[in-house]
Amino acid sequence: MIALDTIREAHDRIRPHIHRTAVLTNQTINEKANARLFFKCENFQKIGAFKARGGLNAVLQVAANREGKAITTHSSGNHAQAVAFAARQVGLPAYIVMPRTAPQVKKDAVLGYGAEVIECEPTLDAREAGVRTVMERTGAVLVHPFDDDRVIAGQATAAKELIEDYGQEARFDLILAPVGGGGLLSGTALSTRYLSPGTRVVAGEPEGAADAILSFQSGRVEKAPYINTIADGLMTSLSERTLAIIRTHVTDILTVSDAEIIAAMRLVWERMKIIIEPSCAVPLAVVLKHPDQFAGQKVGIILTGGNVDLGKLPF
Amino acid sequence: MIALDTIREAHDRIRPHIHRTAVLTNQTINEKANARLFFKCENFQKIGAFKARGGLNAVLQVAANREGKAITTHSSGNHAQAVAFAARQVGLPAYIVMPRTAPQVKKDAVLGYGAEVIECEPTLDAREAGVRTVMERTGAVLVHPFDDDRVIAGQATAAKELIEDYGQEARFDLILAPVGGGGLLSGTALSTRYLSPGTRVVAGEPEGAADAILSFQSGRVEKAPYINTIADGLMTSLSERTLAIIRTHVTDILTVSDAEIIAAMRLVWERMKIIIEPSCAVPLAVVLKHPDQFAGQKVGIILTGGNVDLGKLPF
Repeated sequence: MIALDTIREAHDRIRPHIHRTAVLTNQTINEKANARLFFKCENFQKIGAFKARGGLNAVLQVAANREGKAITTHSSGNHAQAVAFAARQVGLPAYIVMPRTAPQVKKDAVLGYGAEVIECEPTLDAREAGVRTVMERTGAVLVHPFDDDRVIAGQATAAKELIEDYGQEARFDLILAPVGGGGLLSGTALSTRYLSPGTRVVAGEPEGAADAILSFQSGRVEKAPYINTIADGLMTSLSERTLAIIRTHVTDILTVSDAEIIAAMRLVWERMKIIIEPSCAVPLAVVLKHPDQFAGQKVGIILTGGNVDLGKLPF
Repeated sequence: MIALDTIREAHDRIRPHIHRTAVLTNQTINEKANARLFFKCENFQKIGAFKARGGLNAVLQVAANREGKAITTHSSGNHAQAVAFAARQVGLPAYIVMPRTAPQVKKDAVLGYGAEVIECEPTLDAREAGVRTVMERTGAVLVHPFDDDRVIAGQATAAKELIEDYGQEARFDLILAPVGGGGLLSGTALSTRYLSPGTRVVAGEPEGAADAILSFQSGRVEKAPYINTIADGLMTSLSERTLAIIRTHVTDILTVSDAEIIAAMRLVWERMKIIIEPSCAVPLAVVLKHPDQFAGQKVGIILTGGNVDLGKLPF
């Protein structure tokens, strides 16, 4: 189990490289939700998403311990940018295996951090094979997007900051995060357990990638019955590691439809004037869908990221 | 001439009703501009724009002095919402004359603050006639969008906050604001003159509404040669009042094309993850267009507002 000290050390390690992001509130959305919502704005984080935290915590340790001569991972999303960014901070080469179908804008972002992009077929097998080849060729160390205690401890620092900065004022009844592979949710649950033990942790998941809710119920890592959602950051299944933490420390997982996700995303854009990506809107969609459950509550929400393709908006 | 004490009193008057908005910086945009930019985020202001400041300062005084039984104005933009919002704060009825061609979403926003919308033909004559009819019928007082010292003193509080909060750290070489009717620019110039006298004030104006640059040169209120710009908040001409302040206290007015405005707007959306409207992107477009003029400078920029129709984006 990841100890509180491990999360504190992670925070000290990454602090010089990250933003302590703002926490915003919005009167109109509070009125609509009939609750007091505190949004932790990781869309303002380096690389535009909380993933910078976990990527940095892992990569800084790989570099300090001289565990390898390079870093690798496979991802088409924010974790790819996070690892590329973190590797640049420590001066290690980064090799990012990306499906050839990934948008050019995402490949360009990774290239922009000085990493090498290795294209592969868009299957999990091909991605994992690509990473193995890189590791053999370059001596690179894999930084997994979520199945890694160092990554989880890094992601835990977002909720830690939220509680440190607003826990006294807000006395959170709940903290909400979205769930994909479960790295952020695990870290959020651990920080909340340690630093605000009376606060429940609830996850939001898209209906079109509903694996975590199944795994949460059965206790085994399950696959989603189907994958079809606009929340492209939340398509992954849990690992044994994240499921164990989530089963122990998370109260509930609630699902929302893509229409509900888009409506919540639009509400945040229009009312808060900040840009969030679809995956990021899932917890607010949960709150708006279940007004009875959240009425009168003080709710912390991790806004996970703001990386959207402005040419392909769902509005 | 509006005195510093008048601006201070305006600030004290409106402070309970407004946000002291954040000032954001962005490393990528600084690198691109080769300058240090400090963005005063009035897109996070009440009603989504700085106009709340001037509207409130005028309406609160109308109410306190019992100058009329209601408030009226004509506007299809943020001033309409500002006056409706301010009137609600003091419990006075508001009658907003809007061209029948204004987007329904803007009419709805005004209605949402409890104001009455009076539709008219989309000409300045019809709008002014509409306001006269309202004044005769209801005893309402007109709050002009910019040709009013109380409105200018209210708008001046944005630059006042920027200087109070970041002037010590930034020691601004320049402060930039866009210019439409000149209310914000006048207020910005006055606050800067009083509170940071070594700082130059420069305005940005769209090529497709280039009246202020002509008036600035000739010393007379001029019309734009043509009106055709995406910056819908900046189509108005100056008044004698705003021109006099601007000629005395503003260093320069620089113009930018719609393509430059859209590129600057997109850069802010993508990199800062905040929503700004086209008019709001004009000063940054000016900085990016003239790298020689701004290289190495410390620049305050008033981000004026974030009210966009998400269904009609220029990307």
